[in-house]
Amino acid sequence: MSDIKNKILVLICDGMGDRLTNGYTPLEKAYKPNLDFLASQGVLGIMDPIAPGIKPGSDTSHLAILGYDPYKYYTGRGPFEAIGIGMEVKGGDIAFRCNFATSTPELIIKDRRAGRISEGTSLLTETINNLEIDNIKIMFKESVEHRAALVLRGEGLSPFISDTDPHLEDSSVLEAKPLDNSLESLKTANIINKFTRLSYQLLSKHPVNKVRQQKGENPANIILVRGAGLVPYLPSFEEKYHLQGAFIAEVGLIKGIARLLSMHAPDFTFATGSYDTDMKQMILTSLNLLEKYPIVFVNIKTCDLPSHDRNFEMKVRAIERIDEALAPLKDFKGTLAITADHSSPISVGDHSADPVPLLILGDVRKDKVNSFSERDAAQGGLNRIKGVDLMPIILDLAGYSEKFGA
Amino acid sequence: MSDIKNKILVLICDGMGDRLTNGYTPLEKAYKPNLDFLASQGVLGIMDPIAPGIKPGSDTSHLAILGYDPYKYYTGRGPFEAIGIGMEVKGGDIAFRCNFATSTPELIIKDRRAGRISEGTSLLTETINNLEIDNIKIMFKESVEHRAALVLRGEGLSPFISDTDPHLEDSSVLEAKPLDNSLESLKTANIINKFTRLSYQLLSKHPVNKVRQQKGENPANIILVRGAGLVPYLPSFEEKYHLQGAFIAEVGLIKGIARLLSMHAPDFTFATGSYDTDMKQMILTSLNLLEKYPIVFVNIKTCDLPSHDRNFEMKVRAIERIDEALAPLKDFKGTLAITADHSSPISVGDHSADPVPLLILGDVRKDKVNSFSERDAAQGGLNRIKGVDLMPIILDLAGYSEKFGA
Repeated sequence: MSDIKNKILVLICDGMGDRLTNGYTPLEKAYKPNLDFLASQGVLGIMDPIAPGIKPGSDTSHLAILGYDPYKYYTGRGPFEAIGIGMEVKGGDIAFRCNFATSTPELIIKDRRAGRISEGTSLLTETINNLEIDNIKIMFKESVEHRAALVLRGEGLSPFISDTDPHLEDSSVLEAKPLDNSLESLKTANIINKFTRLSYQLLSKHPVNKVRQQKGENPANIILVRGAGLVPYLPSFEEKYHLQGAFIAEVGLIKGIARLLSMHAPDFTFATGSYDTDMKQMILTSLNLLEKYPIVFVNIKTCDLPSHDRNFEMKVRAIERIDEALAPLKDFKGTLAITADHSSPISVGDHSADPVPLLILGDVRKDKVNSFSERDAAQGGLNRIKGVDLMPIILDLAGYSEKFGA
Repeated sequence: MSDIKNKILVLICDGMGDRLTNGYTPLEKAYKPNLDFLASQGVLGIMDPIAPGIKPGSDTSHLAILGYDPYKYYTGRGPFEAIGIGMEVKGGDIAFRCNFATSTPELIIKDRRAGRISEGTSLLTETINNLEIDNIKIMFKESVEHRAALVLRGEGLSPFISDTDPHLEDSSVLEAKPLDNSLESLKTANIINKFTRLSYQLLSKHPVNKVRQQKGENPANIILVRGAGLVPYLPSFEEKYHLQGAFIAEVGLIKGIARLLSMHAPDFTFATGSYDTDMKQMILTSLNLLEKYPIVFVNIKTCDLPSHDRNFEMKVRAIERIDEALAPLKDFKGTLAITADHSSPISVGDHSADPVPLLILGDVRKDKVNSFSERDAAQGGLNRIKGVDLMPIILDLAGYSEKFGA
């Protein structure tokens, strides 16, 4: 590997940060000789992915860690839902979160989740994807169960329109209305209202729904939209940093964000996002990618699963499996950062705003901390930084920063 | 000295921060009993002169340490180049970086640096300084070798004009062009184009160039400009803080910034900016100035020189010489801050974004750190702050802060 000293590897262990369970965090309880060895060679600190006390989503935290201020670039759930399920959106598109729902012919909603439909949505999707209404391209994609996303692409659109989802059952489908006085919002609302009626026409006679009705299940015969958002115009990673970046991610949302930044973020069959994922292969692949790319990110999902299940022992084991996979990094000679995108305490069972541990190796001021955990990291030489500070810091350490001033 | 408890002394050791060389920073290797004694009496922390990961220039970092947000007030290289070579600029002036270059009569550039001319530029300057074109005052001053700066002063000017420097040899001198549709930019571009042609007329027949040509050297017969910038309208130090401040600096750039803020910043013959500078005299003079001024800043250049030369041992000795000069401060009863404007690691040979150590003495929460170094400071009671935070903190400690709210 040429110029290894200028190579940067960033490992983001999803949801790894925690609080205390019986006096210890999972990181403190885990047997993790490789992480501790790496800690003894580097400088540690704690990091607020967004800002102190702000509970991050995986989307906003990854934007921040990649150096894109989420307060500037995060435009709502719609666009990031679409990104997360693998729709190829681009800056300027308008995206919505959607539900398959059950409607009467009078457009009264009887079931907002169409019986939590679990099969057949991809067939239903074929009917309502790739439409065109008023010269605007309509893209639709199903997600899990009744969830889906809708993307409008074309000239003269606006995200400032209201939801069609009444959020209550036995209520009429709402008319999308413009939320400002612009022609763009009026046009977008009209298109959504046409799409809503069209979805009922196309879906209500669909064979999947005929079968559902024969089985006594609620048909998925209309699409409700909510959370309109503009897909942000993001400068690509290369435009922003003059470096080509690669990203190894297990889940759609993270891959989608990387692709939105035009990073190299292919699908890898060994990165499954479940307990069967092959983390060793992910690490070896990251090292291979560093032959070509100056900077590679890896999101390891394993810790997040037991966090949501509030399973302390499983989280300890997930950390131990990550630790094993990191063995090859003990010889890494470039700049290496190991952190998390958010804390997910066992006591909470969801994301929290607690800062995450951060370890940086390379041409750093090695500190006295020789264990990788939340509380040890808080004693480290980096003190406390924010997620958006990470990229500038590691770019400077690896020799890529530009002087501000003279 | 009256009211010594309200006096503030800020020592900025230029480029003192570092990374590890064979496991230690120069500060850690230096014998520095005075700095360590002071550390034992105060509170320490690390400071990002601009922000984490942002590599500061000396200009931007000094603006920040003086409490002027460089993202608001730093307007580019032109103005600060002019300030640095001692031109007395003021808010609203338009300043440029310049080269003496070698041109044909057809204004084709044969040598952008006029043979890196090292003598005679002050004589050439006399010819083209203090001109007036279209009621605009033209000020020109030479710097080292082929470098110089140009300042335009008058009504109706704009910094939004393009360079005349083609940045390539065997290319025509470029016409300065307005970069927006304003009359001000058009007028400024016209003046620069007139100045360019005038510089050729005046310089090509100058005796210095006749001699150069006889010696076979490229004549310095035209001025190329680039990097137009508006000299920022900065509130004076006294306007901002209601305190008169003094600054002892060794180099033009820092003196110039202090003077731009209308601080008392005279030339001192003992402050040379080289290895022969008399730091003891600088410290004694700072204490004398505190008789009259409530706040005095000192920039000590000594550490920056061996940093750029990547000479670890010389940097250790520079720190030891600074330490000796600080002996009189062991009895100082006011508020004392000791820090650096940026790190300049031996491993880099230039500025870096690593935070700098900061020590504050006075009515502070003394911590357990009793050594002044980057890594010891990171364990201190101040944790990690930004450069623009320093002035508010020390003004509050010294009793000058105003309550925000009631």
